[in-house]
Amino acid sequence: MRVGVHKVKMGNPGDVSDLKRQIEEGSIKPHEIVAMIGKTEGNGGANDFTRGFATQSLSLLLAPYLDLSPDAVAKRIAFVWSGGTEGVLSPHTTVFTRSEAEPATGKRLAIGIAMTRDFLPEEVGTMAEVREVAAAVRIALEEAGIDDPRDVHYVQVKGPLLTPALVTDAESRGAKLVTNDPNGSKPYARGATALGVAVALGEVDEADLSDDAIAKRMDLYSSVANTSAGGELRNCEILLFGNSSKAGGDLRIGHAVLKDVVDGDAVRAAIANAVGDDADPAVALDRVKAIFAKAEAPVGGMLRGSRTTMLSDADIHYERHARAALGAVITSITGDAKIFVSGGTEHQCKPGEAPIAAIVQV
Amino acid sequence: MRVGVHKVKMGNPGDVSDLKRQIEEGSIKPHEIVAMIGKTEGNGGANDFTRGFATQSLSLLLAPYLDLSPDAVAKRIAFVWSGGTEGVLSPHTTVFTRSEAEPATGKRLAIGIAMTRDFLPEEVGTMAEVREVAAAVRIALEEAGIDDPRDVHYVQVKGPLLTPALVTDAESRGAKLVTNDPNGSKPYARGATALGVAVALGEVDEADLSDDAIAKRMDLYSSVANTSAGGELRNCEILLFGNSSKAGGDLRIGHAVLKDVVDGDAVRAAIANAVGDDADPAVALDRVKAIFAKAEAPVGGMLRGSRTTMLSDADIHYERHARAALGAVITSITGDAKIFVSGGTEHQCKPGEAPIAAIVQV
Amino acid sequence: MRVGVHKVKMGNPGDVSDLKRQIEEGSIKPHEIVAMIGKTEGNGGANDFTRGFATQSLSLLLAPYLDLSPDAVAKRIAFVWSGGTEGVLSPHTTVFTRSEAEPATGKRLAIGIAMTRDFLPEEVGTMAEVREVAAAVRIALEEAGIDDPRDVHYVQVKGPLLTPALVTDAESRGAKLVTNDPNGSKPYARGATALGVAVALGEVDEADLSDDAIAKRMDLYSSVANTSAGGELRNCEILLFGNSSKAGGDLRIGHAVLKDVVDGDAVRAAIANAVGDDADPAVALDRVKAIFAKAEAPVGGMLRGSRTTMLSDADIHYERHARAALGAVITSITGDAKIFVSGGTEHQCKPGEAPIAAIVQV
Amino acid sequence: MRVGVHKVKMGNPGDVSDLKRQIEEGSIKPHEIVAMIGKTEGNGGANDFTRGFATQSLSLLLAPYLDLSPDAVAKRIAFVWSGGTEGVLSPHTTVFTRSEAEPATGKRLAIGIAMTRDFLPEEVGTMAEVREVAAAVRIALEEAGIDDPRDVHYVQVKGPLLTPALVTDAESRGAKLVTNDPNGSKPYARGATALGVAVALGEVDEADLSDDAIAKRMDLYSSVANTSAGGELRNCEILLFGNSSKAGGDLRIGHAVLKDVVDGDAVRAAIANAVGDDADPAVALDRVKAIFAKAEAPVGGMLRGSRTTMLSDADIHYERHARAALGAVITSITGDAKIFVSGGTEHQCKPGEAPIAAIVQV
Repeated sequence: MRVGVHKVKMGNPGDVSDLKRQIEEGSIKPHEIVAMIGKTEGNGGANDFTRGFATQSLSLLLAPYLDLSPDAVAKRIAFVWSGGTEGVLSPHTTVFTRSEAEPATGKRLAIGIAMTRDFLPEEVGTMAEVREVAAAVRIALEEAGIDDPRDVHYVQVKGPLLTPALVTDAESRGAKLVTNDPNGSKPYARGATALGVAVALGEVDEADLSDDAIAKRMDLYSSVANTSAGGELRNCEILLFGNSSKAGGDLRIGHAVLKDVVDGDAVRAAIANAVGDDADPAVALDRVKAIFAKAEAPVGGMLRGSRTTMLSDADIHYERHARAALGAVITSITGDAKIFVSGGTEHQCKPGEAPIAAIVQV
Repeated sequence: MRVGVHKVKMGNPGDVSDLKRQIEEGSIKPHEIVAMIGKTEGNGGANDFTRGFATQSLSLLLAPYLDLSPDAVAKRIAFVWSGGTEGVLSPHTTVFTRSEAEPATGKRLAIGIAMTRDFLPEEVGTMAEVREVAAAVRIALEEAGIDDPRDVHYVQVKGPLLTPALVTDAESRGAKLVTNDPNGSKPYARGATALGVAVALGEVDEADLSDDAIAKRMDLYSSVANTSAGGELRNCEILLFGNSSKAGGDLRIGHAVLKDVVDGDAVRAAIANAVGDDADPAVALDRVKAIFAKAEAPVGGMLRGSRTTMLSDADIHYERHARAALGAVITSITGDAKIFVSGGTEHQCKPGEAPIAAIVQV
Repeated sequence: MRVGVHKVKMGNPGDVSDLKRQIEEGSIKPHEIVAMIGKTEGNGGANDFTRGFATQSLSLLLAPYLDLSPDAVAKRIAFVWSGGTEGVLSPHTTVFTRSEAEPATGKRLAIGIAMTRDFLPEEVGTMAEVREVAAAVRIALEEAGIDDPRDVHYVQVKGPLLTPALVTDAESRGAKLVTNDPNGSKPYARGATALGVAVALGEVDEADLSDDAIAKRMDLYSSVANTSAGGELRNCEILLFGNSSKAGGDLRIGHAVLKDVVDGDAVRAAIANAVGDDADPAVALDRVKAIFAKAEAPVGGMLRGSRTTMLSDADIHYERHARAALGAVITSITGDAKIFVSGGTEHQCKPGEAPIAAIVQV
Repeated sequence: MRVGVHKVKMGNPGDVSDLKRQIEEGSIKPHEIVAMIGKTEGNGGANDFTRGFATQSLSLLLAPYLDLSPDAVAKRIAFVWSGGTEGVLSPHTTVFTRSEAEPATGKRLAIGIAMTRDFLPEEVGTMAEVREVAAAVRIALEEAGIDDPRDVHYVQVKGPLLTPALVTDAESRGAKLVTNDPNGSKPYARGATALGVAVALGEVDEADLSDDAIAKRMDLYSSVANTSAGGELRNCEILLFGNSSKAGGDLRIGHAVLKDVVDGDAVRAAIANAVGDDADPAVALDRVKAIFAKAEAPVGGMLRGSRTTMLSDADIHYERHARAALGAVITSITGDAKIFVSGGTEHQCKPGEAPIAAIVQV
């Protein structure tokens, strides 16, 4: 296996011209596309429709290339979006391709993809979701050809949240939800899928978990999960990235833990982790292909002793403040604003901390 | 003269407890306070009342110490606020004190303060304002004991903008305004005062200016002006900072130009400029006392080749995006989120660029 | 007792000129002021400081008239603010005065005011708060000279919510809160105080209540409570309004229940209820002195069969949508936008419904 | 000609299930659809992509029915959207069909549709746009079979605004725009198209117009134009509605002028104007099929003597406040929240006033 990583600009959520150009120039082969992870310019909340618009638009573009209907394209390719391009963050998608290749000398970037079944509203944010995600992560691990969970550096999970329609549906059936507040369902939705990753990778023992632990027992977490939730999904999509001895190409992935949203050292550490500690840091910076990180508000809003207003701001959600901050810090180091920074880190690193992964050419 | 620089935390715009504590501990002498420059947690727009609330609250605290009415306190001390603590920015104020001291060996931080007369609504954003500000800057320069304009590193100007009430008033008198849109008046208001600084410091020739040049001829600018506009003011307040051979103490100021809101190198350059180029950068970082910067959207929204959405976002004003980004980048370098970052750089550096000043202990 | 009702315009939260004018003209006597209920132009959320600014500004104005310090003024007069002037709502305060007078023939507007003790963060939104509020309502009832709870038409309660600082404080002490989310604490805070009113007026039996019922058992409610919560308070302030046979003057109060935020019939019913059903509706409309109402999102977001987006909007809080709608509908009937419409109706009428009270000259 | 008017609910901008249902039930014939005018739940600003998403989704649905590509559907059917469902406004689209029919006794609802050519960025908001729109309105008038301009009650125009990309393009070519601020271009864009309507209907003499008059000479206006501007268009689409003696069916249209956003009398007047003054108002209310109105902030923000904060609010655009208010007032009268209320009334009625049209069954 050889994984290709291609940055695609988007002028708006319906703009597919850059992907079309790269396809027509031959640098991206449509049949090799397995996934896209991108940022769209919505508000990142329950009424952010830019993600669905982008998926529909890209599916429409790819349909004739793949001789599939747009709907079938959206089933074949895993589309992962995070809404919200605060600060300098730039709307884009990173296209992942997978093709046949001889293994390289040394481990190289590999990808495994798996889906869960659809969930009922009352399963969202519960152990039912944890277990299904864990099972899917194990499938993705095998597909990626990774034997040692320590070679996994980034597991992107996108799952459902509770929309007003789902809440109404559940209420009409008398089904009990983790919360009846659509915006309030995101912590549970993101937390449950992160715990699924943690269970599958041995970071958390399933025996320590229960419905009550989700979005509450914050000492239980994955250091490589990056999960989000959107109203357009009913099932979970898992994209697992690591380095495999069975993979070819010249890309490697690494990760680190951000102590806070201004932790520039962790950005550099993730890059160093990808290339190996003996690589020249300056050279590595020039070879960064993609960054994927989570942005989190500091605990109690206190950042290194100073009060931030993220958690008390009723106009701008704290995730938006946090993404704006981290996106700018990463861009100040790598020079590229087309990075994936999403919000909400329930059970993804310790409270206040967050995962960051870097794909680098070696 | 010896200038003291004191950081004061604010738990909300009405919270004066930290200043009270520092006064009672003796580290700040109320009679020595000449100015405050701070950030409040409003939206930074025409309906941001956190600035007025903070001034009123601090004046109430200081009134008995100074044996003045609250109103008289607000006239004696120059209060400069910028609303908007996006990203990690922390609400605070930096208190400047001035006391008698012997000159040090080598130039040291000095401050000069001056006020203009009140302006009519129809003068806001016009040459009338440019000329009055220039005259006030010259007075401040003399008060600071600075002979060479190149020793000036930071000139903070706060002036009036057009409020709905002022627009209505002007319309009823048939007076022509630079714009009838209150939020739209800020570029003119900030631009005119910046040009006043530029004229006084010899950066721009007054003969090249006219009403039509304001907020339009962006090739004319000051590199050290940092101007803002608020509905609570009718006149302009000028706070000029530089290094003077007549000043004592152990503080120096320097400045640099930010190429964009992720220009970490400029942050380090401003600090280096303050301490001198032969100082150890790591040591200098530990001795930073205060940072004052402007945040600006990149020209056309394009940051280092990537599209940002700052300029097309109808929910969050571009200044808020820009402040969030720059505030995080500075904090990632200095570790302190209590920094002054304000928005709007009309005639303050080239379009897309912005000034940054640092006060450092030597 | 004779209650006076005076509308005071505010040009911004620090503008006290209209109250000053009415005092100097003699229409408002400072010593007779017992309460103010008003709208300020903040966002109505945890970071809305316009309420505190308004209280401080009005206290500063009144201090010399009352020969008290500003702090003592704020203790003597009950200030109740709701932030958020969405749609056409106009920033203002309604000043209530109380003076000696002979009883009129027939019941007239009376007011009773009471305060609870301060609450610990862990008491906010619990039965402890319910019981203290109920006790205070009984005191206010007696003060108003009202024997029959059915003569009570409006009980305004303002109490504390959980601020980030209080959450941090409670966490450091290991105290359990109803929620650790500052914005999320409002339903509990408002609900508990409404249930306190319901218990005192016999609308709900205290035996049916427990901590678990608060913000959950929505079939238990008061039809005349109007409660809000703000970060600036630690105790609850109760303002009870009804018609008393011991009161004089020419004002009466009535109430009705809004089925939704476009229920114009309920607006007219509240006015009719105040003047008596045999009064000429057109004449009554001209004699409306003040309106106090709550605005609520429809259940599930569905308004008369049409989907609204209030509950899924991540940019604008649903209370802001609801206040904008109801404020406009009331103004379309009475012609006056200086009305008190606040958000959040937990335990104030049935879910989706809300109370409205009208004071009318007879 | 017989015009059919069909309300279609939308659960989100990509939800086409209700239109599909009505097609499959036979109540809407796809080949008869000529236009849709609807509300989507975006922010109504330059970064509102819900309009484009809705058009793409509906085109995808209709493509197989019409045996056209989605792009060809969007060219055949005029899609008009206004983003922003503030207050109670409900996301929906009104589908207009046109079929053959014998003329009725008495004039009946007729529709005429026309398009202009694409505009260059530098033509947006200028006389070039005025003239092209006027020519298109004349074509639409003829198509509708209307001889007397007084029979025209509603002309919906959707045209281009300046996006950041267009501004950059124009700047690179040295082309002069009416403004370089994308959000600031809307008044010019909407104003020019409204003046085009006014010229074609004889409400304004073209000789009185020039580029300088657009968005400035507010005494020149149309009373029936309802124009909007969106970044997704390059040309203008004109939908003209009136009563024609050549039309059949049982629908009529009328209009009135809203004095402000709480003018309930004008809502009733528009309905009465449609059915004729001798009709029973109560019966007419039950027969309202659709309402189309503009919402405008009061001049200087002063509504019937009370200050509103629409024009000074930097968080929520004034159009959003105004739409929330008017939408609620109309719904309080008709009971249906699926109404078309859009913002921005430059040259559509006098400043502060706005047009409203009603289609009623007779």
